[in-house]
Amino acid sequence: MAPREVLVIKIGGGKDLNHDAIARDIADFWQAGYRLVIVHGGAELTNEIATQLGHPPQFITSPSGHTSRRTDRKTLEIFEMVYCGLLNKGWVERLQRLGINAVGLSGLDGRLWEGKRKKAIKALINGRRMLIRDDYTGTVEQVNTSLLQSLLSAGYLPVLTPPAISYENEAINVDGDRAAAQTAIALSARALIILTSVPGLLRAFPDERTLIPSIPAHEVEEYLSVAQGRMKKKVLAAAEAVKAGVSQVIFADGRVHNPIQRALAGEGTVIQ
Amino acid sequence: MAPREVLVIKIGGGKDLNHDAIARDIADFWQAGYRLVIVHGGAELTNEIATQLGHPPQFITSPSGHTSRRTDRKTLEIFEMVYCGLLNKGWVERLQRLGINAVGLSGLDGRLWEGKRKKAIKALINGRRMLIRDDYTGTVEQVNTSLLQSLLSAGYLPVLTPPAISYENEAINVDGDRAAAQTAIALSARALIILTSVPGLLRAFPDERTLIPSIPAHEVEEYLSVAQGRMKKKVLAAAEAVKAGVSQVIFADGRVHNPIQRALAGEGTVIQ
Repeated sequence: MAPREVLVIKIGGGKDLNHDAIARDIADFWQAGYRLVIVHGGAELTNEIATQLGHPPQFITSPSGHTSRRTDRKTLEIFEMVYCGLLNKGWVERLQRLGINAVGLSGLDGRLWEGKRKKAIKALINGRRMLIRDDYTGTVEQVNTSLLQSLLSAGYLPVLTPPAISYENEAINVDGDRAAAQTAIALSARALIILTSVPGLLRAFPDERTLIPSIPAHEVEEYLSVAQGRMKKKVLAAAEAVKAGVSQVIFADGRVHNPIQRALAGEGTVIQ
Repeated sequence: MAPREVLVIKIGGGKDLNHDAIARDIADFWQAGYRLVIVHGGAELTNEIATQLGHPPQFITSPSGHTSRRTDRKTLEIFEMVYCGLLNKGWVERLQRLGINAVGLSGLDGRLWEGKRKKAIKALINGRRMLIRDDYTGTVEQVNTSLLQSLLSAGYLPVLTPPAISYENEAINVDGDRAAAQTAIALSARALIILTSVPGLLRAFPDERTLIPSIPAHEVEEYLSVAQGRMKKKVLAAAEAVKAGVSQVIFADGRVHNPIQRALAGEGTVIQ
């Protein structure tokens, strides 16, 4: 891999990730001339702060059994406080400390991540099917690459975070992994590295000895059934990215030293 | 005043400001071709949320009787949640809804506002003089105009908020009015409009009939003694701006319809 190529790094929201080690690795690649775009999560801390603010997280179960976060307007605002405020500015400060001129943006800023809001969400509540219409979630369909490219060309490292913006100009909660995948596709990134609290995709979660070391791009969707919980969306994101031409998606351990170096050296689950 | 000239609009943090009216006025000026930069506050809401999070605001009284916000690291993080998360993204969303491609940034992003952190703060606590060394406050001395100009040239409206970044790469709480003044100076703005919950500078606060309609630039410092509380910093900001070549600073009412139009028509306190 040659410098000037773009790497998109998705940093999960688990509290046991080694933020200092990730930041140092980012600095090394940046100073070697790679163009990096960071996307970060923050679900765990959002749940804690939402609870402190008297609006604890709620989850919706769809009739097919899929669970997702309920995002009413109040939840969305707490989400913005934690993701766009505390965590995004925390990452910018941490990277500035390492000499990187980071710029933190949400998907609202410059319509960086634009997409469709779900008009209604089907949910099973006390065994009854309900339609929830005041939920602010959706999917990223467009990425403002011109804004990202002009920041990168001017020497800034973009640090991106949900929410995104709907076509009707509403802030919408979107999956960070899939937003990172769309970003990697839009920038023709050489690789998308997804750092989490596990060493990669595990055949029998949580047994780390069952790590799947590699998956051929054309088989990735078959692994959707292997993935547990939040890992499902990551496999979906990976499938979207490799299908659209990102040559490598790597699920890697964000708790270790040199996590990006190790991911690019083939540790974790490499999808290509 | 001709389009392409820069107007810096500082929107105060009082909860009685008419945000929709301010946003509509911003949209009108933007669509007429003016280049606008927005700076917003958020002190009132920060106090509320800090209290909800069990870390209520504290204030420091200096030996000379001046009161300022105590900003320990925890307070700074709550400040970031409210200013950079909830309020900044709220403004971006509100402006996007009016067809303006807004981009929200803190002073950390791209080192937009860089300055000196106060090494130690003198305080009177229970009648004893103390030195507080873990406070994160400071003053903006440098503005990254190249980042602002390139956003403006590409058609984005920058929405700026504290904190700033220290020369040692720490997030620091800075006064929003003085940061707006430095921004207006750095962009050679035609005017700095400071919108608050009062009609302008009042000779006998809170009697609105004692509004001071205009102040000659060379006399503005004499009015420091007239200003009460938070208004003092605004007068200081105005003095800094007009002294450095900003031709007009206007203190205007942010609660009314068309607040920017009315300010430029001479309502409020015009310093020039």
